[in-house]
Formats: sequence, structure tokens, C-alpha cells
Amino acid sequence: MKVVALAGGVGGAKLAEGLNRLLLPDELTIIVNTGDDFKYFGLHISPDLDTVCYTLAGLANKETGWGRANETWQAMECITELGGPDWFHLGDRDLGLHLERTRRLQDGQTLSQVTRQVCQALRIRPHVLPMSDVFVPTFVCTDEGELPFQEYFVQRSCQPMVTGFRFQNMEKAQPAPGVIEALVDSDLVIVCPSNPWVSIGPILAVPGIRGALASCRVMAISPIVGGKAVKGPAAKMYLELGIQPSAVSVARHYGDLLSGFILDQVDCELTITIQNMGVQVHVTDTIMASPAERFRLACEVVEFGMRLIQSEASG
Amino acid sequence: MKVVALAGGVGGAKLAEGLNRLLLPDELTIIVNTGDDFKYFGLHISPDLDTVCYTLAGLANKETGWGRANETWQAMECITELGGPDWFHLGDRDLGLHLERTRRLQDGQTLSQVTRQVCQALRIRPHVLPMSDVFVPTFVCTDEGELPFQEYFVQRSCQPMVTGFRFQNMEKAQPAPGVIEALVDSDLVIVCPSNPWVSIGPILAVPGIRGALASCRVMAISPIVGGKAVKGPAAKMYLELGIQPSAVSVARHYGDLLSGFILDQVDCELTITIQNMGVQVHVTDTIMASPAERFRLACEVVEFGMRLIQSEASG
Repeated sequence: MKVVALAGGVGGAKLAEGLNRLLLPDELTIIVNTGDDFKYFGLHISPDLDTVCYTLAGLANKETGWGRANETWQAMECITELGGPDWFHLGDRDLGLHLERTRRLQDGQTLSQVTRQVCQALRIRPHVLPMSDVFVPTFVCTDEGELPFQEYFVQRSCQPMVTGFRFQNMEKAQPAPGVIEALVDSDLVIVCPSNPWVSIGPILAVPGIRGALASCRVMAISPIVGGKAVKGPAAKMYLELGIQPSAVSVARHYGDLLSGFILDQVDCELTITIQNMGVQVHVTDTIMASPAERFRLACEVVEFGMRLIQSEASG
Repeated sequence: MKVVALAGGVGGAKLAEGLNRLLLPDELTIIVNTGDDFKYFGLHISPDLDTVCYTLAGLANKETGWGRANETWQAMECITELGGPDWFHLGDRDLGLHLERTRRLQDGQTLSQVTRQVCQALRIRPHVLPMSDVFVPTFVCTDEGELPFQEYFVQRSCQPMVTGFRFQNMEKAQPAPGVIEALVDSDLVIVCPSNPWVSIGPILAVPGIRGALASCRVMAISPIVGGKAVKGPAAKMYLELGIQPSAVSVARHYGDLLSGFILDQVDCELTITIQNMGVQVHVTDTIMASPAERFRLACEVVEFGMRLIQSEASG
């Protein structure tokens, strides 16, 4: 069973961790959004990649949802004392990773090479791949003008009203080595419950990825539950873009890529609408409040995928 | 009374701190070696400048002689875990300064502008000036080839045999703004008990500084006491360069720049040799083992300077 997960930050990382407990390391590839990568103090910061890696390594900070557990903040306190920009909080241990990654990138290594080395050092066993080695920063178009993603997301707390998105430099990007191969080899692609606009959207926009997915068995888990985002600005973005935030909108978002869809039980009345789109639906509790629930959801998603495979074989 | 101190790292910082307690802020300018500046993880690190600033701000780590007190090492531990270069130890709080300084330099500010801002933030009152805003890294010529200074000093623990020094890019350097003005306005220039080769040497090599010093009243404190360096490789360097390490060698090193020389009491038998060079000598305890001794030595040095001024006036 070869599974590929497409993941953004927290929601993606939680499901990836559940899948990591269920599958053998060679059975799982996680392709991670790097559209939220940015430069801060000259450092190359990859928040989604780090959230996924810290979560898989058991190092994630469960309180904040980002950064490392048992973190200290001495460097940032000093920057604050000096009057420097401190809107994006970098913990001291986290900084170590950013410094070493930036050093290797400046040395000529690629982001996927550095990610592989980080995974080895942190004893992460599944394949974790950035979507691309090319820097393709997401910009959020708002009523206050275009903002770099992290300025919109962290500095402005998602306050400005969204009118669209721009993935800078995307036309020149290629999928990172291994991405297309993993998709082509996959039995199942799982679109994690991450933000469709700014977490999964950039992955799908990398030239070549959407085309490869067209030949894959793709299932998505809705990050919108009961009309609200489990975390983050997904629902607010749908509303501001004139779309009712709902699991149906998420299913429409991924459109004909989808073979299956996992719907939260609170949204079970949407089952038929989504089935009418030609998509198989599995209804369950999708909120991963504990490690046990991450594992349970991963099991259900993979079992649902196996049923899809069997029904295709018999159908 | 306008005093300028030329300073390297620890010895310079200690005397500067003593002078800071004695003089009014506008009476004291400290010109600091930046020949030991280097790039590490893309950060601009100025070890001597930081040692002087941390010492003046009361933040210096007294045990290590470098870096900050109450420091943590989380970022560096993470870098070690990732297999990155960890031979130069950066504390977490120290890192905050390097990050913010590097950010401002990349933003187009000069090292002396950033240093002034750091001094304001750390409530340092005398003028602290880098010798130059130009990056002029010191290379140590050794029997194993040429080594960047910090690689010789920290990574190789001063083990390779020294054959000479090269101050890269020095022909293109200018003194930082305020350096020549401070020297011209000074009543007294104090060459701190810092390494003559790699702490004071680079300052004197900045085009224009030696010429300005020729018109100044210059006094030096020997960093060689009883034939040994108080700290660091100064004595080893003299030996390897075929020169007997002694206070006399230090006095000859500065040569006709000197009006006065402060000799440690253990070297009092060298008084006449140095006086015969046309240099006034003051003998005292020059080892600054405590803050009280820093202050006492600063007082003696300034009093000695005032006696020189009076004897010139009457002579």
C-alpha cells in the first residue's frame, strides 16, 4: 500500500502522524506546502515543513500548534530589547534548525536535500518532501493590497479581507525530486484537512502536480466542519471570496481530482450532495483532538481508500 | 579630559569598563577592533565589539570571558543534533544580537550605525566605535597555511605556528565615522592591554589611523606580564615570530607612537629599557582580576596621562 499525503501545517501534520503510526516508512510519502516559506532575518523559514517534521519527530509544541515543545525564547527577547522585528516568534531550538537549513541552502544544497537530512537527524522515517525546491512564496491579495503570506497570517492575524492569492514564481517551479514519482507510484493520495487556498492550493499549483494527480486515486478530508474551519482562516477566506464555507465547497474546490471524501459526522446531511458529484463519501469524526484520534482517523481513511480500490476492482 | 581607548576583546573591555566608571560619557570613546569579525551561518559576528559592549552593559559572561551572562545554548544544541558546524559557540541571547545586527546591515545600515543603536538599547553611555565600517577580516599565516582568524583562534585553539598576519581588504578600508575626529580631539589615547598583533594591529592598519595617532598622546598597557600573555596567544605569537615575548617587545611594537607605557610591577626591572626608548613609564599592578581593580587601573592610567600632560606643559 503506497500512500501519499498532501499536507499544510497543523491539520496535515496531525493526520500525517496518524498515518506514520499505521503505515511502514516506505509506504508513506508526505508532500508538504512550502508556499508559506519566507525570509526573516535572512533565514529561510519553512513553517509547514517544520510543523510536519516536528510533529512526526514528537517534538511539536502542542500548546501553540507551531514550533517546538520545551522551547525557550532568549534570542527573540534580545531582538525585542534591540527594537528589532519580533512579530514572528522564533524559539531558540527552532532557530537552530533555521540557521542550519539556511547555511546548507546558501552552500548550494536544495530544500529537499536539507529536508532529507533534517528527517534523518530527527529520526523521521516516512518520506517528507517539500512540494518544490523553488521558492514560490504565497501572496494574499486583500482590500489593503497584496501581503506576503506570513505578514497576512501572523503579523496581521488574517484581519485584512481576502480577494485572492498569488503564488509568486510558480510558473518557473518544478515539483521537488520524488514528488511526481511518489504520486505515480501511489495507491492512494490523501489531501489532508489543510487550508484548500493556502496550504493545498500552492501544492496543486506547482506545474506538473495537478496533471499527475489526475491519474491518482485522491481522497480529501474537509478542514471545514459544521461551516467553520477547525483551525485557521479557511472559512473566513471562503466567505470573503463569496463562497459559503462548507465541506461541499471544499469538495467542489478539489472537483474532479476526487475519488473519495471524508466528511465529519456533524456534516452528514451533506453526504448526498457530495455523492451526487460522483465522489464516494465516508462519514466519521474528523476532529483529531488526541494522538489516539489521529491514529483512528488515519486507519479509517486508509480503510476507506482500500474499499475504493476494491470496489474499483470489482466494478 | 577627552580619552580614546583602543581595544580588542577581554583585556580591552575590562579597562574600558574601568574608564567608563571614571570618566563622563562624553569624555570616553572606545575604538574597537573588528578584524576578528566573521560570517557564521550567514550572520555578521563581531566578537570584540560584542565583548566590549556586553562588558560595558554589565551583561558579560565572567566565566567564559566571551558572550553573555545567564546564557542558554538551545539553538546551538539543535545545530549539533543536525550535524551542523558548532565550533564557534553562539548563545541564544547572543544570537539575538547577531540576527538583528545582520538584518540591519543587510538593510543597508553601517556597522557603526548598528553599534550606536545597540549601545542605546543596552544603555551604554560612552562612544563605542568599530575601527571601520568595512569588513577587513584578519587572516593568520601559519605553517599549515593561511587561516581565517576565528578558525585559528577558536576552531584550532591557536595551535598552528604563526608566521604572519594579513588584514584582507584593508587597503580599501576607511576609519569608521568619528574615529579620526575622536583621535584628533583626544587629550589621551590609551592602547588597552590587548593583543598587539591581532587586536591592536588591525586598528593601526586602518588607513589614516596610524597617521592620526602620530599627533596624539599615546599610552599603552602591556598585555604581556612576566613574559606571558595575561590571556590569549600574544606571547605564543611573539615566540613563533622569533621575538622574545616581553613588555619591552610590546613597547617596541608600538614604537614612536608611544608617549607613556604602563608596566606591571613584576616587570619593574624593564623600566629603564623602556625609558631609554624615550617613553615615560608607570609601574603598577595591571592584572584586573575584579571590577575594583579595573577601576583602580583606569584611575592610575588617567592620572599618569595627566602627569604626562603637565610635564609637557612645564617642560
